[in-house]
Amino acid sequence: MIMTMKDQELPFTGDILIENDRITQMGAKISEQADEVIQADGMVAMPGLVNAHQHSPMSLLRGFCDDLKLMDWLEQKMIPAEDRMTPEDIYWGAKLSMAEMIKSGTTAFADMYIHMNEIAHAVEEVGMRASLTRGLIFLGDDGGKRLAEAIDLIDQWHGKADGRITTMFGPHAPYTCSPEPLQEIIQLAVNRGLPIHIHLAETKEEEVKIRTRYNQTPTQYLYNNGLFEQAHVLLAHSVHLNRMDIGLLRGMRGGVSHNPVSNLKLGCGIAPIHELQKAGVTCGLGTDGAGSATTLDMFEEIKAATWLQKLDYGDPTILPARSALQMATRNSAHLLQLDHEVGTLAVGMKADLILIDMNKPHLQPIHQVESLLAYSVNGADVDTTIVNGQILMKNRQLLTINEEEVLEQAKVRAKRIVDGI
Amino acid sequence: MIMTMKDQELPFTGDILIENDRITQMGAKISEQADEVIQADGMVAMPGLVNAHQHSPMSLLRGFCDDLKLMDWLEQKMIPAEDRMTPEDIYWGAKLSMAEMIKSGTTAFADMYIHMNEIAHAVEEVGMRASLTRGLIFLGDDGGKRLAEAIDLIDQWHGKADGRITTMFGPHAPYTCSPEPLQEIIQLAVNRGLPIHIHLAETKEEEVKIRTRYNQTPTQYLYNNGLFEQAHVLLAHSVHLNRMDIGLLRGMRGGVSHNPVSNLKLGCGIAPIHELQKAGVTCGLGTDGAGSATTLDMFEEIKAATWLQKLDYGDPTILPARSALQMATRNSAHLLQLDHEVGTLAVGMKADLILIDMNKPHLQPIHQVESLLAYSVNGADVDTTIVNGQILMKNRQLLTINEEEVLEQAKVRAKRIVDGI
Repeated sequence: MIMTMKDQELPFTGDILIENDRITQMGAKISEQADEVIQADGMVAMPGLVNAHQHSPMSLLRGFCDDLKLMDWLEQKMIPAEDRMTPEDIYWGAKLSMAEMIKSGTTAFADMYIHMNEIAHAVEEVGMRASLTRGLIFLGDDGGKRLAEAIDLIDQWHGKADGRITTMFGPHAPYTCSPEPLQEIIQLAVNRGLPIHIHLAETKEEEVKIRTRYNQTPTQYLYNNGLFEQAHVLLAHSVHLNRMDIGLLRGMRGGVSHNPVSNLKLGCGIAPIHELQKAGVTCGLGTDGAGSATTLDMFEEIKAATWLQKLDYGDPTILPARSALQMATRNSAHLLQLDHEVGTLAVGMKADLILIDMNKPHLQPIHQVESLLAYSVNGADVDTTIVNGQILMKNRQLLTINEEEVLEQAKVRAKRIVDGI
Repeated sequence: MIMTMKDQELPFTGDILIENDRITQMGAKISEQADEVIQADGMVAMPGLVNAHQHSPMSLLRGFCDDLKLMDWLEQKMIPAEDRMTPEDIYWGAKLSMAEMIKSGTTAFADMYIHMNEIAHAVEEVGMRASLTRGLIFLGDDGGKRLAEAIDLIDQWHGKADGRITTMFGPHAPYTCSPEPLQEIIQLAVNRGLPIHIHLAETKEEEVKIRTRYNQTPTQYLYNNGLFEQAHVLLAHSVHLNRMDIGLLRGMRGGVSHNPVSNLKLGCGIAPIHELQKAGVTCGLGTDGAGSATTLDMFEEIKAATWLQKLDYGDPTILPARSALQMATRNSAHLLQLDHEVGTLAVGMKADLILIDMNKPHLQPIHQVESLLAYSVNGADVDTTIVNGQILMKNRQLLTINEEEVLEQAKVRAKRIVDGI
């Protein structure tokens, strides 16, 4: 069964022909033309999931300090641990995350972190698609150094690895970027035609901070500094938006990465996704780092996204299964400025797709396949993951990652990093 | 690693010896005494999960009518479909649910439905532990007939299948049981020393209905009819409780089955679990039927339970990982009046336990095993499921259910049941 995720297109039975990195045919009985045939009886083929907001090396800190107050979590645990991470740790942490992502059906991700060169090398080797961003914080004196690293990353990696790697500029958040560097970065992004990836309104505390400093909401602050005028912007979180804020985002290029699991686990609140969608803002889905979300399974985000909007409105018809699946595929692809290439299945698109094995007790009977995909499938039901025409996982075996080696590296490195914290 | 779920007991490394239906030793190096050894390196042994509220045959209607208003869902879809279910459908639906439950680590469940004899036969064959309840609705003239069926079920099945099957009385809900039959059932339960399983305050509509009829909240209505005085009571849902209601439940025997996924999907709201726990009320976890929850994976309920309380209080320290795991094991076992036998791992307890394979990218590194179990494990990570000393699943292969046959029966029957609805 093929689920293209194109508007109103119902699931249908057929074959998909992949040549090199693209889908070249879709329909009945074209398998005879192929050199290699993957039998997918009883499986659903759908676009690979796109994780629109990630900090991939944080998988090394998965479950290290859950159930703490956000500031204790950040200041006493996460930041001291991150300070100890070497470039090699970053590389192996990113690989651990990619192993998990491939095994749970994610084919592309947007990543913001440090030592991005290491992540780029890992992405190049593993075969995933990624939009990489050096996070830019301007609190001490190192802002300029970080910006130079960001430009280096862009110069070295944008469009590389057969086009699988793209880059963005990453001013970290309203509360870590004052107007001067923020405007400088916007200008750099516009000049190079690159998108911007930024955190927005994750917590109530951020709102208070920005209001105290600038007498504006975080969204107003970004708007008044010209962020939405010319650049394609990926806004992560966007939990605390009022009606006027949503009005300011109307017509924006890019959109919002909703990260419901992280927002829930850190007690941040429910992002106004239904209102944003009504205002025409594209909403995708992301996991945030495994340090907060614990798992990078995008099927958990799909469930959590639809649950939270139904809860918020007391209405089970809000954000139905199909819309949640669209958020995780084509909408997230739009946020990464990749929706012309991935996020739907169609002839001419890049071959980024997954096969889900439905022949399981929790996925039968099939009354509505969208319902099962949104509400019952989890990452372990993904049988095969293909990116850019390359098979990265088949029958749940990773083909481009030595899983045992990655797990071993993760264990040893994680132990060293947190020792004594 | 052994996670007993006993208070404050940390995970430790060791062996578990099972003789017949019970755990007879736990500690280092006792494996040489066993006839059969299960190598569980890199796995966590923990008590099997207990699903405290289920309608198992509804798995045949999984995903049939998601994303509808609750009353449309119930009246236009669920009830017409349920009316078409034959006793054989009930049997196969229950078996489908048990296949899913065993594969996702559930070892015992509380079930309320019709044709309970069929479910009892299925439970007896499959080897799970279950507390069975004939749901009692007193709206038309059939109340007496239903009550006779309930008593039949109890007479025939209570304590049967090597003690794996127990029974409860099941007055359905405040709005379907007027005072007279409610009091009659309470008296019957008290006389026989049996617990009562009842829905309470699932929706705002129920609250309005009961207030209009009796000028009381649903909780006051049950209290004033003497429900909590002498009987052990399993309250399902309990979403809409005010402070006074919670006060009335203080000191109750039994407790509340929280069903967060169903409550989210139907837009019902967040049950006040933290307040109930502060008042000393035992809170367990259940899935509700697959007709609303879609999946019966209790690890989803564990995640949703902790997420919702953190969200409700804007505080990530509320309902930490370990508490959520306790809800799904020993607390749920308490609700089924089985906590002297299952729900914790200890010498002398029944051997109801599961092995979780941690050697996976989303479960490494292990900083805090409780965090991983609560926030990252899903049902598919369960490798082995043991009930009453019998291995029901090993290396993800079901040993007492013909999975292929169950899936085939489910497909054919589900199609017939919903045809034309």
